[in-house]
Amino acid sequence: MTKTKENSKGAMTSARLVESMLELIQARGYSGTGLNTVTEHAQAPKGSLYFHFPEGKEALGERAVALAAERFRALVTEAADGPPAELVGRVVGVLAAMLADSDYQLGCPVSVVALEMGGQSERLREACANAYASWIEPVAAYLAARGHAPGEARTLATAVVSTVEGAMIVSRAQRSVEPMRCAAQALTRLLEA
Amino acid sequence: MTKTKENSKGAMTSARLVESMLELIQARGYSGTGLNTVTEHAQAPKGSLYFHFPEGKEALGERAVALAAERFRALVTEAADGPPAELVGRVVGVLAAMLADSDYQLGCPVSVVALEMGGQSERLREACANAYASWIEPVAAYLAARGHAPGEARTLATAVVSTVEGAMIVSRAQRSVEPMRCAAQALTRLLEA
Repeated sequence: MTKTKENSKGAMTSARLVESMLELIQARGYSGTGLNTVTEHAQAPKGSLYFHFPEGKEALGERAVALAAERFRALVTEAADGPPAELVGRVVGVLAAMLADSDYQLGCPVSVVALEMGGQSERLREACANAYASWIEPVAAYLAARGHAPGEARTLATAVVSTVEGAMIVSRAQRSVEPMRCAAQALTRLLEA
Repeated sequence: MTKTKENSKGAMTSARLVESMLELIQARGYSGTGLNTVTEHAQAPKGSLYFHFPEGKEALGERAVALAAERFRALVTEAADGPPAELVGRVVGVLAAMLADSDYQLGCPVSVVALEMGGQSERLREACANAYASWIEPVAAYLAARGHAPGEARTLATAVVSTVEGAMIVSRAQRSVEPMRCAAQALTRLLEA
């Protein structure tokens, strides 16, 4: 095997480990996810986790939160071109589909890590704070571009992100996308006022 | 010791165990809370946990979620007599003070249990669904009493509960009550429109 192939195989294993950590956190949280389960779920060789993440679970969790942050930011940024009803409808629609398609087994990985680890790991708390900031920022920019004063755009964007996060949890608990529908309706009204 | 005294001592131990479980869940989630830690935190005799909760952790978690549900419902019901700005301000104010006073160590116990255990324990998922329903209901009744059509009152009430839940998580991650302030401002605007 050439050096490049080895490197790319290593990068793929590392990416699979992060992806598995992310999915397992979504399904059962951070504390309830054992590293052996991550390695098995990723179909990665034993020992690969400590090879790629010598700092252990916290470093892997940090990467998983960053990956989730990046994906959701991309979704928000893509959706931020039409009127508020369209932005809200698209973002909430994708998340509601994820909830229903997983039979309400998957939730937002950032919220569960913030709640479990916010008081115990400064590193994970910061990863979560950065994730939220990275979602609030494009929504605030979108609202500012539509004529809201910067401070107000930021206030509304923070409330939008909070509402969507909260609605995902209530939806999951109630095994229904109804709370997502309620959030979309309220946010559309708020942003179009 | 008379029988009554024994009973009341038992009831006090049981209540202390539930209270400790609740606080520990708020601080570090359900999976990360070991039963020995609960017994120690409650300063309860070893073995008392299995005496009072022979079904174990799930039953104790269910009681902790129910206690949190009851307390927050009382807060909402008490605050539901003035105009929307007052209701929102009081509820968000109490929760923001809890976050700041605990140095952002305590969050909402219902959301973390829903996220960690929603896919693994039907009993705990139901306890969380009931908690949310018990908060949505008085807010919907309050809005209906103020002239909103029943369906709309329910939609708005669900969005209010989701927004407050989400804002608590974002606040905790960011170690700032700013997201709570943003939620209060957005909700006031939404409900007074």
